[in-house]
Amino acid sequence: MRLSLNTATVRKQWNLAQMIDGCVRHGIEGISPWRDQIASIGLKKAKQLIREAGLTVTGVCRGGFFTAKDWKSDNLRAIEEAHELAAPALILVVGGMPQDSKDLAGTRQKIRDSISEILPEARKAGVPLAIEPLHPMQVARAAVNTLEQALDMCDALGEGTGVAVDVYHVWWDPKLESQIARAGARVLGYHICDWLPATRDLFNDRGMMGDGVIDLPKIRAYVEAAGYAGFQEVEIFSELDWWNRDPDEVLRTCVERHNRCC
Amino acid sequence: MRLSLNTATVRKQWNLAQMIDGCVRHGIEGISPWRDQIASIGLKKAKQLIREAGLTVTGVCRGGFFTAKDWKSDNLRAIEEAHELAAPALILVVGGMPQDSKDLAGTRQKIRDSISEILPEARKAGVPLAIEPLHPMQVARAAVNTLEQALDMCDALGEGTGVAVDVYHVWWDPKLESQIARAGARVLGYHICDWLPATRDLFNDRGMMGDGVIDLPKIRAYVEAAGYAGFQEVEIFSELDWWNRDPDEVLRTCVERHNRCC
Repeated sequence: MRLSLNTATVRKQWNLAQMIDGCVRHGIEGISPWRDQIASIGLKKAKQLIREAGLTVTGVCRGGFFTAKDWKSDNLRAIEEAHELAAPALILVVGGMPQDSKDLAGTRQKIRDSISEILPEARKAGVPLAIEPLHPMQVARAAVNTLEQALDMCDALGEGTGVAVDVYHVWWDPKLESQIARAGARVLGYHICDWLPATRDLFNDRGMMGDGVIDLPKIRAYVEAAGYAGFQEVEIFSELDWWNRDPDEVLRTCVERHNRCC
Repeated sequence: MRLSLNTATVRKQWNLAQMIDGCVRHGIEGISPWRDQIASIGLKKAKQLIREAGLTVTGVCRGGFFTAKDWKSDNLRAIEEAHELAAPALILVVGGMPQDSKDLAGTRQKIRDSISEILPEARKAGVPLAIEPLHPMQVARAAVNTLEQALDMCDALGEGTGVAVDVYHVWWDPKLESQIARAGARVLGYHICDWLPATRDLFNDRGMMGDGVIDLPKIRAYVEAAGYAGFQEVEIFSELDWWNRDPDEVLRTCVERHNRCC
């Protein structure tokens, strides 16, 4: 499986143009850009640079946050951008409970209804929507927290929906293997990094592949058995470590670990 | 439902004798002591003080850690102590992957096998074993992470096993209601606290009931519907807040919040 760079991995050091150059320099063939980075150089320019660099877009991050005020217009724009970049999916980080709410079930219903509302536009644009279950500790960012829950939503929503499998969020799940098998062709993205046993932060302390306790080859085998033939997308949020390093060192390490540990 | 004090809540301020006095002073009728606290005043003395205070023991914390070296002798002692204190259950914090291991499935198998090995002694002693699923972010402390997984183990292990439902660990679970219903009479303990939206630490930053986003009355209704008629046991690990406060203020707040928020 080829390697793709989720641009969150070097978000503190580089802009999108530099990230694209970095991918080329390190032989990384795919890229999954974040929308704020696209916006900062402009969609047209982003598209042009990615094409000139010969990179495959493996996703656009992110739509979602369905409990935010302007969720609908924002998601319609995200679909448009993903379409322009020929992304195989728009990744949805679905959002959590609104301030002062304790209504988790209601939030989940709102998420499902909202996806249903934008789905016709996504289908028209040919942009599959990838629901990404986030780790239960990140329920503030996303109230979809297991693959089973995400796939139940996909079952209800129908064509044009699928899941993004990020090892960081799902590696602990006792039903991981069975739910990836259930997902089948609905696996729209596969994100890698590692879980550090001494995690210091709930959001931004992901480890580099090989530095933690996730059995990456095993999960890779699960997604391959499900028929996934896309890229492995490295996505590392790391306030205390990788975001402070020379980005060329980061990419060099990603490539090396991708070859050795994944 | 009556209130019980899980002694972890004031572990930094008081010894067990002081905790027992504190319960009496604040009208808390149950107690769930930790074994290190029992050991520090002696089992006989602990038993005597709890009886004299008229408290109900709602659990003993903890057996488990089945991947540690001396797990078997330690768990047999824990069963004996729970028996002596007439606890309705020995709470099992099952332990995580050994150092340098990435074998999560193997760890889970080892946990099941170990419980199976001590179960005859627990049955003989009349001490039910309560498997406590821990939050997936605490996989280092426990590789049983959902109620469904814990109940699958109980199904396999049979009589004398059940689960401890701690809201902190399970509140996010999309299958919470259905799995509590499935547990039925196997709910051996019900632990309360709250989830803080801005959680600062993976282990020791629990909130006081009412300070977070958990819908406590809803989960209480689930366990009541399952037939649970025991205590609500407050268990707050809080390095940055409640462990630094006057323990009488802590217990006063527990009682007030128990009446108002649970």
